[in-house]
Amino acid sequence: MTGQAVDEAIAEGRRKIEWVRRNSPVLDGYVRETLADGALRGRRVAVVVHLEAKTAFLAKILAEAGAEVVVGGSNPFTTRNDVVEALRADGLTVIGREGGGYPEWEEDLLALADTEPEIVIDDGAELTVRMAKHRPDAFRRLAGVTEETTTGTHRLERMASAGMLPFPALTANNARCKHLFDNRYGTGQTTVQALLALTNMQIAGMRIVVVGYGWVGRGIATYAKALGARVGVLEVDPVRALEAMMDGHAVGSAADLLPGAAAVITATGGIRAVGLPEFDLLSDGAILANAGHHDLEIDVPALESAATSSRQARPQIRAFDLSGRVVNVLSEGALVNIAGGSGHPIEIMDLTFAVQGLGAHHLAGTELPVGVNVLPKHLDDAIAAARLRAGGITLDEPDQRHVDDVLAGLSEGLE
Amino acid sequence: MTGQAVDEAIAEGRRKIEWVRRNSPVLDGYVRETLADGALRGRRVAVVVHLEAKTAFLAKILAEAGAEVVVGGSNPFTTRNDVVEALRADGLTVIGREGGGYPEWEEDLLALADTEPEIVIDDGAELTVRMAKHRPDAFRRLAGVTEETTTGTHRLERMASAGMLPFPALTANNARCKHLFDNRYGTGQTTVQALLALTNMQIAGMRIVVVGYGWVGRGIATYAKALGARVGVLEVDPVRALEAMMDGHAVGSAADLLPGAAAVITATGGIRAVGLPEFDLLSDGAILANAGHHDLEIDVPALESAATSSRQARPQIRAFDLSGRVVNVLSEGALVNIAGGSGHPIEIMDLTFAVQGLGAHHLAGTELPVGVNVLPKHLDDAIAAARLRAGGITLDEPDQRHVDDVLAGLSEGLE
Amino acid sequence: MTGQAVDEAIAEGRRKIEWVRRNSPVLDGYVRETLADGALRGRRVAVVVHLEAKTAFLAKILAEAGAEVVVGGSNPFTTRNDVVEALRADGLTVIGREGGGYPEWEEDLLALADTEPEIVIDDGAELTVRMAKHRPDAFRRLAGVTEETTTGTHRLERMASAGMLPFPALTANNARCKHLFDNRYGTGQTTVQALLALTNMQIAGMRIVVVGYGWVGRGIATYAKALGARVGVLEVDPVRALEAMMDGHAVGSAADLLPGAAAVITATGGIRAVGLPEFDLLSDGAILANAGHHDLEIDVPALESAATSSRQARPQIRAFDLSGRVVNVLSEGALVNIAGGSGHPIEIMDLTFAVQGLGAHHLAGTELPVGVNVLPKHLDDAIAAARLRAGGITLDEPDQRHVDDVLAGLSEGLE
Amino acid sequence: MTGQAVDEAIAEGRRKIEWVRRNSPVLDGYVRETLADGALRGRRVAVVVHLEAKTAFLAKILAEAGAEVVVGGSNPFTTRNDVVEALRADGLTVIGREGGGYPEWEEDLLALADTEPEIVIDDGAELTVRMAKHRPDAFRRLAGVTEETTTGTHRLERMASAGMLPFPALTANNARCKHLFDNRYGTGQTTVQALLALTNMQIAGMRIVVVGYGWVGRGIATYAKALGARVGVLEVDPVRALEAMMDGHAVGSAADLLPGAAAVITATGGIRAVGLPEFDLLSDGAILANAGHHDLEIDVPALESAATSSRQARPQIRAFDLSGRVVNVLSEGALVNIAGGSGHPIEIMDLTFAVQGLGAHHLAGTELPVGVNVLPKHLDDAIAAARLRAGGITLDEPDQRHVDDVLAGLSEGLE
Repeated sequence: MTGQAVDEAIAEGRRKIEWVRRNSPVLDGYVRETLADGALRGRRVAVVVHLEAKTAFLAKILAEAGAEVVVGGSNPFTTRNDVVEALRADGLTVIGREGGGYPEWEEDLLALADTEPEIVIDDGAELTVRMAKHRPDAFRRLAGVTEETTTGTHRLERMASAGMLPFPALTANNARCKHLFDNRYGTGQTTVQALLALTNMQIAGMRIVVVGYGWVGRGIATYAKALGARVGVLEVDPVRALEAMMDGHAVGSAADLLPGAAAVITATGGIRAVGLPEFDLLSDGAILANAGHHDLEIDVPALESAATSSRQARPQIRAFDLSGRVVNVLSEGALVNIAGGSGHPIEIMDLTFAVQGLGAHHLAGTELPVGVNVLPKHLDDAIAAARLRAGGITLDEPDQRHVDDVLAGLSEGLE
Repeated sequence: MTGQAVDEAIAEGRRKIEWVRRNSPVLDGYVRETLADGALRGRRVAVVVHLEAKTAFLAKILAEAGAEVVVGGSNPFTTRNDVVEALRADGLTVIGREGGGYPEWEEDLLALADTEPEIVIDDGAELTVRMAKHRPDAFRRLAGVTEETTTGTHRLERMASAGMLPFPALTANNARCKHLFDNRYGTGQTTVQALLALTNMQIAGMRIVVVGYGWVGRGIATYAKALGARVGVLEVDPVRALEAMMDGHAVGSAADLLPGAAAVITATGGIRAVGLPEFDLLSDGAILANAGHHDLEIDVPALESAATSSRQARPQIRAFDLSGRVVNVLSEGALVNIAGGSGHPIEIMDLTFAVQGLGAHHLAGTELPVGVNVLPKHLDDAIAAARLRAGGITLDEPDQRHVDDVLAGLSEGLE
Repeated sequence: MTGQAVDEAIAEGRRKIEWVRRNSPVLDGYVRETLADGALRGRRVAVVVHLEAKTAFLAKILAEAGAEVVVGGSNPFTTRNDVVEALRADGLTVIGREGGGYPEWEEDLLALADTEPEIVIDDGAELTVRMAKHRPDAFRRLAGVTEETTTGTHRLERMASAGMLPFPALTANNARCKHLFDNRYGTGQTTVQALLALTNMQIAGMRIVVVGYGWVGRGIATYAKALGARVGVLEVDPVRALEAMMDGHAVGSAADLLPGAAAVITATGGIRAVGLPEFDLLSDGAILANAGHHDLEIDVPALESAATSSRQARPQIRAFDLSGRVVNVLSEGALVNIAGGSGHPIEIMDLTFAVQGLGAHHLAGTELPVGVNVLPKHLDDAIAAARLRAGGITLDEPDQRHVDDVLAGLSEGLE
Repeated sequence: MTGQAVDEAIAEGRRKIEWVRRNSPVLDGYVRETLADGALRGRRVAVVVHLEAKTAFLAKILAEAGAEVVVGGSNPFTTRNDVVEALRADGLTVIGREGGGYPEWEEDLLALADTEPEIVIDDGAELTVRMAKHRPDAFRRLAGVTEETTTGTHRLERMASAGMLPFPALTANNARCKHLFDNRYGTGQTTVQALLALTNMQIAGMRIVVVGYGWVGRGIATYAKALGARVGVLEVDPVRALEAMMDGHAVGSAADLLPGAAAVITATGGIRAVGLPEFDLLSDGAILANAGHHDLEIDVPALESAATSSRQARPQIRAFDLSGRVVNVLSEGALVNIAGGSGHPIEIMDLTFAVQGLGAHHLAGTELPVGVNVLPKHLDDAIAAARLRAGGITLDEPDQRHVDDVLAGLSEGLE
């Protein structure tokens, strides 16, 4: 880039980060204040999350607290150059790039490992597993890791139970301020947004099938129904299916629900949730989108094999011809709210990154047992309280009167 | 009663039970079929739940399966005479009465204990704790207890940890088909119903404050908002308060929310959730109702002391005069959906009683460890599947393809 | 009745009326103040509406304003004795009774006519058409009529166009404070309430078909869906059906929607909306209820002919046996929210009766043209503003800035 | 453009139009079939609507029916070059360009007038008023105009009442398939979409104020509330405000509602709905967006005068500094769902353009009176029915039984 192009990138990156700051009251208030105690001063902290403006603001908060921050991306395709330049202009180390592929990304992660971080803020445990495999010495010297996702947590737990995790880890995902909010509200909202923005279709009256009724599926189904869609839920767990029914959705088998559906959205957390048997049931013009963790919930390779041809119907929409029917896949089956939208809303990431930032602070300042730990409840509560305060809300204190006599009543029959 | 009056009561009780049967597809289908294996034949089973038509149908299903059923009530005020007569006419033993008070009820429970039941279907552990205290020999001979409520489960757990539970217990409340449905959907619907039926008021545009945002509070808030009320949630846990905010409700302190509220509904599971400090904040005409377990969430005695006078404003509505303001309490602060309505919808109790009936069957036919046990997941699933089938719904089987490779992917970094 | 019974009835009636007063801020405030100008002093006003507590409060407001009020009932089955006694104890003339049938009711209406009212507050034009036919002299001397319903308005318009209406009439139904609120919100809420109260069923997950998508049908469908029901709308007008689809409901033919429906609610304003062809499509256990004006939307006589037998399944539920299927009719097909509930919420009638009370005042104090007139818009606005004020709400005044230039812009191309 | 660039533009334009076709079942089915009767063959039809893919598909349908179509844009900033090239490649005449300003647009409209169209499909009456003023001869020779908007209809009505409309006009806006759907569902959905897409904010828990409670305001308020926002409605008409309250929204004065609001959306149809007095009430960070017809509902010039500075905070977001507070304006106050989004969903325009296309056909084939006419109800019904059929839905025919006796009942008292 020319000097002027870099200046423009920096300016644009700073604008984006400033917009994030203004809508991140927890990071910008409570977290900043907590980190000001110096516990992170001089500690090397690696931040390896999708490298866009929201992550950048977390990195800046850590740097402001005195940490030596090194920043990388948790995915080769989500890094934004203007954000990278803005961080560098503010003196942070960034090892990552927009426009690279998997090989470059792997290379960058190892370069990050070579900076010998003490604490890792990870996403999918992408840096941690690479350090374990390829940089064993640096790995053993880690003071701790705080991990954002369910998938990463599973990986860390497997490492721990295999005796391969020699330091304390924190799992942000188990914090209530993370898992109660991001999947249900964040993914729910942004998946429906992406579906409508990419297709320019009307949701009122649309028949939508949601595959899977976990937090993500519930969020999508709730938002879609709220906007006037008629929602069917495809779920193999009968108790969850019964909940879906009582939430007002249609439930049934794939053969019951898929024919006639205008859109099918996967949210199972599994693989090949929608494959050849399901493609056969789709009506002409059906739209497929994925909101689950894995890019493989829609079996796009199988669709490619089965189709006589395919073409780009609109940006991020690929149309497959299946003997007289057309099936449209959004964002090639990747997470539609990230690939086809702007990811989580800022306020959701404010909560998640508050958990991650406080997690790094907690790892730096507290003696924690080796293995996978959970963020203490009082920090979780403090994040929620800070968010409420930002909206001008102060709750009453719990009243001990309400609690004591209940316990007394339960003792009856024991004396 | 005269012979004719008894005949009429029997007829009316049978009509009520038949209506329950027609809307209880799980009990009337899957449970009946499962119990037909003879495991309960000749076993003496005590059923001690609110003695009205829904309970009666459970008792009849057990009797039909060959059990020697003895029936009592879990509360002195909810027994219905016509149902008692209908059960007796069908040959079941009933020890209970409509119109008695606490002394008669205690007497009846001990008489029930004296029938030496082998298995108890209990509610609040009311019979179990009395047997432990007053009939220790019969208590020790019990083969097992299956308990319906959270409160009863807490009592059993205390007994177990004190080494005082010499037999296996099952806790229906931990079954997903119980706790996921009854508080949220059942209490939510029927509390709003009772509020509107008792007051003849309009809910659209009404300002309602829900105290407590657990399952019950969420259910009430959801239904009230859905009907057009503006809902405030009074909650001391900041994470729950934040969830309430993201569900679209107002949150804040009592001082923020109570002034101007048309109705305040308690659902904390605690005691004195609304007392003198809160009464001071209420506007003239405010309505107080309780949907939590304890009759003491609204501090009616304190209200009586503070009021200059009180009078019956409508059936089940008592108006208290507080220096220029009137505050109306529904059903004297007792559970408003039971005292002022018909309790849970039939379909909710179909699920709960399926758990209880299968629990009794499980206790009779399986060697379970001493202490508090949970209903096996496959029975929970079977109940949900039976309910779905009754609505003509058959789900697809889980597809192993969806699961296997996910696990494989998590192993990366471990070899 | 004995003296003591009368005293008790008076006390109970007064309690009911006082409850109405406390929840009728418009009648109790703005209407009372407006009527205090003396325009109704000494005028004889007949109030002929369902004779229960809400109507009684309107009558009392008129009496307090100095009118000579005579009160009757608009339907033989909705008069409440305690309310009658309470009104008489306060010196109002009541010509009506609880417990009579159609002949007694006709008799009472003629007796009312014989009191020679000057102004009639009518419902269905029941008194007006009888005066026209049987008391032509008194009819000609009427100063005016203010009418509550659509049906009554149609009757008055027919009389007017036949040259048979020699005085001014006002149609409350055309006031926005009447027709925008009572059918949609009032009937919507109370119909769903009655369905659930009479059946003790759960609405979450229930399949409900609403027949007709006018204001009443929309209200019912909206409330039912909001509570978790899956709603189908049976409508022959394609534009209304399309609206129903975009509101998230299923639409289709009777053959598409009726099989499998748990409840079918008629709201067409027509006759025999559900008859033999529809009964054939119902599933076993289906519930039929009517929320439309006419008791004949469900063709109960045809059902009686087709059924092999029928019986009372619960209070207000009659079960018909149709060759292997049971069909349940609520409240014999009469308006289910009145026959099986408490009618409109108080706040809805506060608006409607404000229109009627101000209508009577307007007829008394203003020279209106002969024929059917509409309440002036400023009175309509004043009622809404009074209701908002009762909730502590004051709106901003319209800003002329917002309006002027728009008109200017439209003139382009004309000069 | 180079030849290759043109080829690429044509290809992209065709892809867009094809996507529209696939989601426009009414235009692609019923309208195409109706126009095949030849009534439009050889007739010169001008289409002057926002010149993007949806409009292009209407133009192609008309051309396919044999009309000589000339296409222009109704706004200088919404014309899309790829669509223009695709239409030209298919032989249609297009007089319009992307990238021009008002002067070029005026020039293009006069050039369009000079093609001497017989029938105009107009939007805002933009071509019609210009022909009246600047091309009076061509104007007088017009066979008819079919107009899309309320504003345009008002203009035509003013021309008619001034005796200046010498031919029949049709107003699409009065067709139920237009006005019942586009403002409420179309603008409602896409305004909320644009707000979220431009800001990357979370809607759950957001406090949103909607200014004006007409169809547009209702749609926005409904969708925002459905997604978890807490909505306040600022409305000066007390009856509409009362409806808003009963729909569950907060109502009040600007001073009640604006402080603390995160976003304020105007939908009054007026001018300067939000100006200096309102800016003073906004909290720091508040977002302003306009969804009403006029770009002047937010008084941006006044904001510019009052602000100490302003800057681009994100694309389409301009931040104004007001003595310590920042106020953000979306899309410079232009219609946010068009300027900051993709305009109406395709399915909404399918209905609107079906009205316009059938309107042109009706003008061509029927003798209509001079002045402003409404599309016949049977065509309106046919459009809705076609849309339902596209979703596999066929309604029952109206049953005369339901109607007849009702009328009979109304005649009572007349003989």
